[in-house]
Amino acid sequence: MDPRIREHAEIIANHSVDLQAGDNVVIDAHPVAEDLVVALHEVIGDVGANPVTTSQRTGKRQQRAYLRAADDEFETPAHELALIEETDVYIAIRASDNVTQTSDVAPETSAAYQQAHRPILDERLSTRWCLTQYPAPANAQLAEMSTEAYENFVWDAVNKDWAAVREHQGQMVEILDPADEVRIESGDATDLTMSVAGNRTINDHGEHNLPGGEVFTAPVPDSVEGEVLFDMPLYHQGREITDVYLEFEDGTVVDHAAEKNEDLLTEVLNTDDGARRIGELGIGMNRDIDQFTYNMLFDEKMGDTVHMAVGRAYDETVGEGNEQNDSAVHVDMIVDMSEDSVIEVDGEVVQRDGTFRFEDGFEE
Amino acid sequence: MDPRIREHAEIIANHSVDLQAGDNVVIDAHPVAEDLVVALHEVIGDVGANPVTTSQRTGKRQQRAYLRAADDEFETPAHELALIEETDVYIAIRASDNVTQTSDVAPETSAAYQQAHRPILDERLSTRWCLTQYPAPANAQLAEMSTEAYENFVWDAVNKDWAAVREHQGQMVEILDPADEVRIESGDATDLTMSVAGNRTINDHGEHNLPGGEVFTAPVPDSVEGEVLFDMPLYHQGREITDVYLEFEDGTVVDHAAEKNEDLLTEVLNTDDGARRIGELGIGMNRDIDQFTYNMLFDEKMGDTVHMAVGRAYDETVGEGNEQNDSAVHVDMIVDMSEDSVIEVDGEVVQRDGTFRFEDGFEE
Repeated sequence: MDPRIREHAEIIANHSVDLQAGDNVVIDAHPVAEDLVVALHEVIGDVGANPVTTSQRTGKRQQRAYLRAADDEFETPAHELALIEETDVYIAIRASDNVTQTSDVAPETSAAYQQAHRPILDERLSTRWCLTQYPAPANAQLAEMSTEAYENFVWDAVNKDWAAVREHQGQMVEILDPADEVRIESGDATDLTMSVAGNRTINDHGEHNLPGGEVFTAPVPDSVEGEVLFDMPLYHQGREITDVYLEFEDGTVVDHAAEKNEDLLTEVLNTDDGARRIGELGIGMNRDIDQFTYNMLFDEKMGDTVHMAVGRAYDETVGEGNEQNDSAVHVDMIVDMSEDSVIEVDGEVVQRDGTFRFEDGFEE
Repeated sequence: MDPRIREHAEIIANHSVDLQAGDNVVIDAHPVAEDLVVALHEVIGDVGANPVTTSQRTGKRQQRAYLRAADDEFETPAHELALIEETDVYIAIRASDNVTQTSDVAPETSAAYQQAHRPILDERLSTRWCLTQYPAPANAQLAEMSTEAYENFVWDAVNKDWAAVREHQGQMVEILDPADEVRIESGDATDLTMSVAGNRTINDHGEHNLPGGEVFTAPVPDSVEGEVLFDMPLYHQGREITDVYLEFEDGTVVDHAAEKNEDLLTEVLNTDDGARRIGELGIGMNRDIDQFTYNMLFDEKMGDTVHMAVGRAYDETVGEGNEQNDSAVHVDMIVDMSEDSVIEVDGEVVQRDGTFRFEDGFEE
């Protein structure tokens, strides 16, 4: 077994979910991730916790068969709920042998199934949970990389000194958390301002998401003004949307365009009122993620980028008394900040061309 | 997908476990059995039941990793117990990519783990459960067959008209259930008598075991007299024992021998007092099982054989007021009855050279 798999398992157990003796653990994984599941079992045995392995989320071929055979009426399965109610630690390993396995399931069937499983999802989110990635060949294919290069990419991004990451990212949290106005400028097409006054900035250092590597907050919904060109591609419902352009007035999208699949972008924005407002501002700080791989677990943490999501704001980012943007969607879009770009906070430049003011090489 | 896999899935659902809308189902399977798991999901979706897939029993590589890392103190995991307590139907699919995967786990560790999981096993047995087999290459290898020949073998034995089997076997149940004395004679070495008075004969027609294909009961423990040569091999704890010879007086083994691995046989018989007595008499009636495959799920149902187990008697076979043989073990051993053999019940020949008296070709 590649020693990086055991390292990955130890980071999940010891850093991300803080595994303890007696913990009841659920690992959900596709068989292509077997090596990581086995390495996790070594750690779980060593610690004295209790593993159960399922393939509810990741066994897409069986899920497709089930959903295509079912009518659209689902109930919340009492046995699956009972399992997760007694679970302390939930580890979901993304990996697939075909990332388009559910492409011929009717979206309304999937939606009805997810709706019925919402209480199970809520219970998962109340455990010490972690979502991570195993570098399976099909995931490498989605990233347009060889399997070996993708393995290097994933394990470089995941197997890090996360305490050091927390400390490094903490410098950006200290700037953003007490701030009022944020301005994002990039090239000719992006000049956007927003208020984050009263909202909280979260330091994502590899706990719920592994890899981590971003700091994120929410704008005050009505405060967003200006225009932005998301020059990194967006992969939504199995389709790519490129060069998304959004123009905001009083926090709401008043004009939009895209180079490819603009109709899909329009559909997202028309979901509900909240889908035309920004629910998240994130700053990618994981420089081991140095290329786009059509996988938001990685893409949004890419070094020298910022991302914004139209739609729902995360609870933990919204300060007491502030409005929380509500929507059925949360769709992240990414701006490359590595060239001809600045982030200003309360009138002061805090990042120029990807370099933060607390880093070497920053030019005032 | 081979159409025989869908047929297998439909027999499990519609015959073995009588699947109903709203049933909470657990399928435990190794990934090599994925096709059958997918086919079961089609049926489960169609019926409107709720599937959860686990690999607790069959994920031997992860189990080995866990058990080797653990100390020998285990608790009953509350989440695994909660899952099975809310489960209506439990389907275990035997299949492996290496049947010797746990050969380097210490037996005392496995025993301690199984002891802690006993409440979970008890809950499984209170569901509508089925144990079946998927013909994976490693299982074919154990059977010393090509994968294709083994697929044919498994699906011939499994995909049958089980209502017709029940009716055919019912004729033997009608003979054995009210009987007193049973005599098994084969060749020069086997001449054994026992009483089954007051005990019940069970018709195994593919419910808990798929394939089914036997009728079985328990002898009155002290009644077994004579000698028996089990001329089919026995596979116990990963080792083969051949030509087991047992001599009984007053129901207890007073002499024993084996051609190969006699020490292992001695160990079995020395487990406890009950291990020297017979707990089961079974008559194999599935003639599609026409060869020995080192898999008791099949071997004990082989046509033209009888099997006896030293050790524990099954609850359902012991009549009210009769003694139930108790032991920590239940080890089945098989006699070939196809030549120079008779089964007599209360002094009447009911099978000669494998042919029952209710079948064509029977010679009085």
